[in-house]
Amino acid sequence: MRQIIEIVPNYSEGKNSEIMKQIIAPFTDNPDISLVTMEMDPSYNRTVVTVIGEAKEILKRMTESAAIAVSRIDLRIHIGEHPRMGAVDVVPIIPIENITEDECVRLSNILANDIFEATQVPIYLYSKSATREQCTNLPDIRQGEFEGLGEKMKDPKWAPDFGKPIPHPTAGAMAVGCRKPLVAFNIDLNSNDKTKVLKIARRIRNSGGGYRFIQAGAARLADRGLCQLTMNLTDYEQTALYQALEATIMEAKRYNMEVLATEIVGLVPKHCLINSLKYYLKLDDPVKVNWSLEEITDLAIKHFKLRDFTIKKIIEYYV
Amino acid sequence: MRQIIEIVPNYSEGKNSEIMKQIIAPFTDNPDISLVTMEMDPSYNRTVVTVIGEAKEILKRMTESAAIAVSRIDLRIHIGEHPRMGAVDVVPIIPIENITEDECVRLSNILANDIFEATQVPIYLYSKSATREQCTNLPDIRQGEFEGLGEKMKDPKWAPDFGKPIPHPTAGAMAVGCRKPLVAFNIDLNSNDKTKVLKIARRIRNSGGGYRFIQAGAARLADRGLCQLTMNLTDYEQTALYQALEATIMEAKRYNMEVLATEIVGLVPKHCLINSLKYYLKLDDPVKVNWSLEEITDLAIKHFKLRDFTIKKIIEYYV
Repeated sequence: MRQIIEIVPNYSEGKNSEIMKQIIAPFTDNPDISLVTMEMDPSYNRTVVTVIGEAKEILKRMTESAAIAVSRIDLRIHIGEHPRMGAVDVVPIIPIENITEDECVRLSNILANDIFEATQVPIYLYSKSATREQCTNLPDIRQGEFEGLGEKMKDPKWAPDFGKPIPHPTAGAMAVGCRKPLVAFNIDLNSNDKTKVLKIARRIRNSGGGYRFIQAGAARLADRGLCQLTMNLTDYEQTALYQALEATIMEAKRYNMEVLATEIVGLVPKHCLINSLKYYLKLDDPVKVNWSLEEITDLAIKHFKLRDFTIKKIIEYYV
Repeated sequence: MRQIIEIVPNYSEGKNSEIMKQIIAPFTDNPDISLVTMEMDPSYNRTVVTVIGEAKEILKRMTESAAIAVSRIDLRIHIGEHPRMGAVDVVPIIPIENITEDECVRLSNILANDIFEATQVPIYLYSKSATREQCTNLPDIRQGEFEGLGEKMKDPKWAPDFGKPIPHPTAGAMAVGCRKPLVAFNIDLNSNDKTKVLKIARRIRNSGGGYRFIQAGAARLADRGLCQLTMNLTDYEQTALYQALEATIMEAKRYNMEVLATEIVGLVPKHCLINSLKYYLKLDDPVKVNWSLEEITDLAIKHFKLRDFTIKKIIEYYV
């Protein structure tokens, strides 16, 4: 059985599409892997790429892509709104099919070693691959950014897992690690009152006493004349999408607000949708369902009020 | 302004009411403090006492009570279902009025010192008063119980905060500390299926991905022919009672179960009730309400479906 993983490398280049075309070239024209999305953000000056496919092939191609990025991106002249510490800032590895989290941690070690040997960029293992508590959370590693790396790395606590504690002169440092699939889920509310929507977000998110694996905030979408509760489900197997949706509906009642629609940004594993559909269809383990991806798509649009949703948002579509 | 605290000492005697009468004598006939409840449990062989009142007076009386308990309870011959390490097993201190958590931590240090001087029983500071990570959680301190204390205390990691690392021969050791008020909230469901109710409990509690400050389990009440979802709200200011109730109603829908009634075991701070009533009455901060305890009682019975609830369940009734 083929072992399928997803990687979501973040590159510190969001303006020059010529350069990005070269960087992602190793992911194209390959029957074993799919380049699913490439989202360039000029104001962030950052590009997020999603690739799904056979594990070993992805590792090889990611190493090639990292080498190109390191040769083409110079952080000494990089300006953008998103915090960053490296030309390739972070490479998350996510288990998709026929592969465990532990195996992905092992793969992340191999990938980090390969990339270090190819580029000489020092690398931190983060998230599930972290070897130390302080490297679990990416923003902690990135704190201080490229400009602060030289000083930061002198502290033995912040020595990288691969390479010497000296930043690469133009490409800084990199984080590589296995993490759970993260589901970005937004909810449109019929309100222009961002303060109230932020109160709802605080009540449903872990940091405010809410659900353990919800991170949430509020955004005002001026062009659409409404507010959005924007969230990440950081472990959909433990905090389900239906819980995030129902908790929002419940909290919104206090303000007589209603959910107009919901949205999934990026990709979602089919099991995230299936688990939550089972709630609405009053099914429970050990009941198994055998829906096609088309059926899952239709049911998800209906029960979760999803807008702009197609089968191409489901990770398994690319497997 | 009088500083009001609650203490909930647990004594390892749950059968002999004569002995318990002597132990709680210091809490009676005192205008500055109220002995609110004394719950003897013969199968646990343990008694839980609740006392509310003026802080300094409570400290003095608790020290007297501990001295009597140490002289009357012999753990060498104590048998009961509940884990225990001392004649006085634990003394939680809870801030109620005109007193901060930090001040209660300070009081717990004074109380621990006074009790140690009066009884020579070694004492651990726990919960908010813990001086070390391993003493935050009471069950960790108590692990190994009275019988294992001698060996456990030889490990420097488990040296007590007061006294030498040797258990008192008949009274073992004691934990003293400040903690948040804990609200014990149970929900009756119209079902006999404990397995399903346990699934609901898992989905709403923190350990299963649910609300951060909910601990929950399931119990079958054979005499009433139904199951109860039984929970502790460990920080009602962050995870509110209405969230616990609404999440349970939502999860129960999957099984076509309904909430028949709810119950508060022990006491509840009025602010816990007020905060959640505001949800049902569609009020929000900064709106202030000025309900009497009688009004709060009536509203709580109505909106939370509380059974067996009276004004005497509200902590502030005793202040």
